[in-house]
Amino acid sequence: MTIILDGKKTAQKIISKISEEVFKLDVKPKLGVILAGDNPASLIYVNNKLKIAKEIGIEVDFKHFTQNLTNNEIIKKILEWNKDDSVNAILVQLPLPGILYAPSIIEKIDSKKDADGFTPYNIGQLILGYKPYAEPCTPKGIIRLLKEYNIEIEGKIAVVLGRSNIVGKPLSALLRQNNAAVINLHSKTSEKNILAFSKQADILVAAIGQPNYVTSEFVKDDAVVIDVGINRVNNKIIGDVDFKSVVDKASYITPVPGGVGPMTIAMLMENTLELYKNQHKKINPL
Amino acid sequence: MTIILDGKKTAQKIISKISEEVFKLDVKPKLGVILAGDNPASLIYVNNKLKIAKEIGIEVDFKHFTQNLTNNEIIKKILEWNKDDSVNAILVQLPLPGILYAPSIIEKIDSKKDADGFTPYNIGQLILGYKPYAEPCTPKGIIRLLKEYNIEIEGKIAVVLGRSNIVGKPLSALLRQNNAAVINLHSKTSEKNILAFSKQADILVAAIGQPNYVTSEFVKDDAVVIDVGINRVNNKIIGDVDFKSVVDKASYITPVPGGVGPMTIAMLMENTLELYKNQHKKINPL
Repeated sequence: MTIILDGKKTAQKIISKISEEVFKLDVKPKLGVILAGDNPASLIYVNNKLKIAKEIGIEVDFKHFTQNLTNNEIIKKILEWNKDDSVNAILVQLPLPGILYAPSIIEKIDSKKDADGFTPYNIGQLILGYKPYAEPCTPKGIIRLLKEYNIEIEGKIAVVLGRSNIVGKPLSALLRQNNAAVINLHSKTSEKNILAFSKQADILVAAIGQPNYVTSEFVKDDAVVIDVGINRVNNKIIGDVDFKSVVDKASYITPVPGGVGPMTIAMLMENTLELYKNQHKKINPL
Repeated sequence: MTIILDGKKTAQKIISKISEEVFKLDVKPKLGVILAGDNPASLIYVNNKLKIAKEIGIEVDFKHFTQNLTNNEIIKKILEWNKDDSVNAILVQLPLPGILYAPSIIEKIDSKKDADGFTPYNIGQLILGYKPYAEPCTPKGIIRLLKEYNIEIEGKIAVVLGRSNIVGKPLSALLRQNNAAVINLHSKTSEKNILAFSKQADILVAAIGQPNYVTSEFVKDDAVVIDVGINRVNNKIIGDVDFKSVVDKASYITPVPGGVGPMTIAMLMENTLELYKNQHKKINPL
């Protein structure tokens, strides 16, 4: 019997615990969110993050820049928040519109306030196996979901499809750190090789942005299948995994929506609280 | 016919070019080297690095700490060199004696002077696909050696045995960035899986510190075999690859010694010069 990895329920459980912790705090954590441009999908994501933060008592400061802007305007805001003790966590919604260069912007975020765990320092710490101030939300959420369901990672063969800076690369690093043998495939891997290695995966993660790409022939019997895809097709959200085709073959599988997505948001809330606690620990060692 | 990847000759070619460049400079690059303790192998490595640096006109400042010391003594020296404009590159020889904690020391090096490319910032930039100030010498040297021999990486299946912060992890990232499908295996991978995946490798890299571990049964016909191992057995240097067993099966293979080792040192010299040039570019934009 295939078990559906219920990211929504797991995320709610985590968020509810965070909410209880935040409730007890006199000074609430504050998350600064920057959105540039009017990408409809980004607007939905950001609004969802803001909504959940507010619901659980995390304060938000939302800065929405219009399409016509330079790197410097965003950087100015980041530097202001870096210095502002009342802002504990900073998030820049990606992707940024074409004229902006994300790496130069992201690296300006104080790593101690890096809600997404995307600064070079935090990514470096993650790769090296030392503690970053925050881990990227989607990879962190996937590992958490596996652990919540007691799915063993150590010694397993994990195949990660996709090598984005947001998911594929940091997730490969986290799986390796959890002692999986990690196979990272991408757009420059032949379809033949993608198929051949995917079929050997104990844990198969699809993060390539191609609707219904992974069908049953990619999946080994009883594999754990994680679908990171969020593809909008005819106003519907479609994953990278063809759920219907794969569901009976997998031992565990994440649905889309309701799988990885909610875990990502839960991890953002957790990162915000952790950054807050780390900053307050320094001010007051009690 | 198997081609021996001559790291010694390739490294000499690179070093000779660096030497010509350094010769023309009025102010010479300076490399600060820290060694802690009296590990005989480390002493040999450091002396070799110092010798080659001096030969090509790079100035060196060598600080040898005795075994009884704290993190802070080393960090004090690093901070001093960070501020000293005449020191362009800083290297802390690893491993450090047991009482010292390498991550806290390495991260104090100014990333702009990080000769080994080991700071979290530089590793983060490397992973993210952006330009670090310097790349780790051994992985950089391996990629360079492959390119000098026009060995294609894109689309190939690369298997990396070992996940050290010095070789396995950054090399996996560099191979991925060069568009290989990357399989990273390690001590928590079953021997059965190590064998099964190694046999599928177009490029097989052994960086596990186990003498003669890789024998012909691990190697696909015409694979490229890279041996990073430097194991001292009965006063002889033995690689991780059983050269005799593998040589006829591989298309290309590095010897030990004379393969990856010399390339590592050449890349250290290159990093030192590049850091120097980057620092001088800022002072004088011509």
